Amino acid sequence: MLITSATNAHIKNIISLKEKSKVRKSTGLFTVEGIKMFLEVPRDELKEIYVSESFEKENKDSLKGYSYNIVSDNIFKKISDTVTPQGVLAIVKQKKYTVEDIIEKRNKNGSCIVVLDRLQDPGNLGTIVRTGEGAGISGIIMSSDCADIYNPKVIRSTMGSIFRVPFAISHNLPEDIDKLKQGGITTYAAHLKGDLYHNGVFNRDVALLIGNEARGLSQEVSQKADRLIKIPMEGKVESLNAAIATAILMYEAKAVRDKIQ
Amino acid sequence: MLITSATNAHIKNIISLKEKSKVRKSTGLFTVEGIKMFLEVPRDELKEIYVSESFEKENKDSLKGYSYNIVSDNIFKKISDTVTPQGVLAIVKQKKYTVEDIIEKRNKNGSCIVVLDRLQDPGNLGTIVRTGEGAGISGIIMSSDCADIYNPKVIRSTMGSIFRVPFAISHNLPEDIDKLKQGGITTYAAHLKGDLYHNGVFNRDVALLIGNEARGLSQEVSQKADRLIKIPMEGKVESLNAAIATAILMYEAKAVRDKIQ
Repeated sequence: MLITSATNAHIKNIISLKEKSKVRKSTGLFTVEGIKMFLEVPRDELKEIYVSESFEKENKDSLKGYSYNIVSDNIFKKISDTVTPQGVLAIVKQKKYTVEDIIEKRNKNGSCIVVLDRLQDPGNLGTIVRTGEGAGISGIIMSSDCADIYNPKVIRSTMGSIFRVPFAISHNLPEDIDKLKQGGITTYAAHLKGDLYHNGVFNRDVALLIGNEARGLSQEVSQKADRLIKIPMEGKVESLNAAIATAILMYEAKAVRDKIQ
Repeated sequence: MLITSATNAHIKNIISLKEKSKVRKSTGLFTVEGIKMFLEVPRDELKEIYVSESFEKENKDSLKGYSYNIVSDNIFKKISDTVTPQGVLAIVKQKKYTVEDIIEKRNKNGSCIVVLDRLQDPGNLGTIVRTGEGAGISGIIMSSDCADIYNPKVIRSTMGSIFRVPFAISHNLPEDIDKLKQGGITTYAAHLKGDLYHNGVFNRDVALLIGNEARGLSQEVSQKADRLIKIPMEGKVESLNAAIATAILMYEAKAVRDKIQ
């Protein structure tokens, strides 16, 4: 069946999944777009596939073994984020990790967990997921008031890492930080009043606490940390971008793990 | 005089400066917006100031000593990038550094120069300028086909560092890399086939060569480098975001300088 109407129930469903965090939450679903992202989706997490007429004609081979819906090129433009859509979009099931899963599943010989407190920018969140996979983190714990990780902008900027880096939503960050500490993980808060982040500051089993772009960590959260650390800044720079700061710290933690192991 | 018309010559001039790289080039001017950015502009680089009626009423004190043009709130919205404009915009003179200036003015006891080859994303460029100031780089050399550093998106994401980090456009990057080498600077190309970036790889007087987001460095440029270096990546990550990779390398170079000095 070819979908040619914007009022088709499937199309309306896709658009509300893309635009509304609430709908993503209530259905436990999200959307990914583009051929590269589509091929990254684990098979058992795929729920529905939508392709444009032209995509279907040109990619019959890659679509073998999948069942999919065909959408007219015109209607596909309406569900796409881009001006010249690649022509493939999937509805994907959300994963459900708990904070305990992330603590439990880490490599106890050396690991890095990233804890995000009220991070707001979707691009920053996606970049942290992508860089985090590269830096070998074992997972991300986010306060429930962070940007929605299933927002299409976040998904896109993860470049596929969303399917490989475990993450959990925390509904009580101070309590969950206690759980990290009880699990033997040293917690480090990125903080303007902290000690310099290198020179042997990091243990090999660490959690990095990262705050909001404008306001930093809440006091409640930074007080829980075993140690405050900072990235030195020259000139008149008052702060670094949150994804940049997180990347520098994750890679320093990786360097420490790699030297020790 | 109060400007109330969108066809006013000043207003048309501002809009073309914001939208057209060509106009910025031919006039040697660019625009900055917002109170924080406005206050960062060195006085002798300020050419014209435009404020909205409401901004002028509420900020008479901060505007003392400046001569400025007042624009109706409605027209100010047309020249602003944001939905709720802060109400202040300035036209600023571009600075002109040469590649030689940047080589000459560096601290010879330890410095880092960033060389960008065809970097395309304005957000990445702005973030590199901002992080670069924090990491204490002595300047940036850009190939002439990089994103325009005076694009309003770049300016905004530098958070004011644009006024403090020297930069020059190179019209022949391989030749200018030779000048760096002749100046005693060791050149490092970020490259997937390079050596790991830490463990004593960096000298204290370095240049980092960073390539295009999708295609990396051109072969011509990477062949010129004294050494190829890479940031290790775990999982299935094929590359890091260009601003993230540059940040990690700039801060590693800083760590080496800070330990040695």
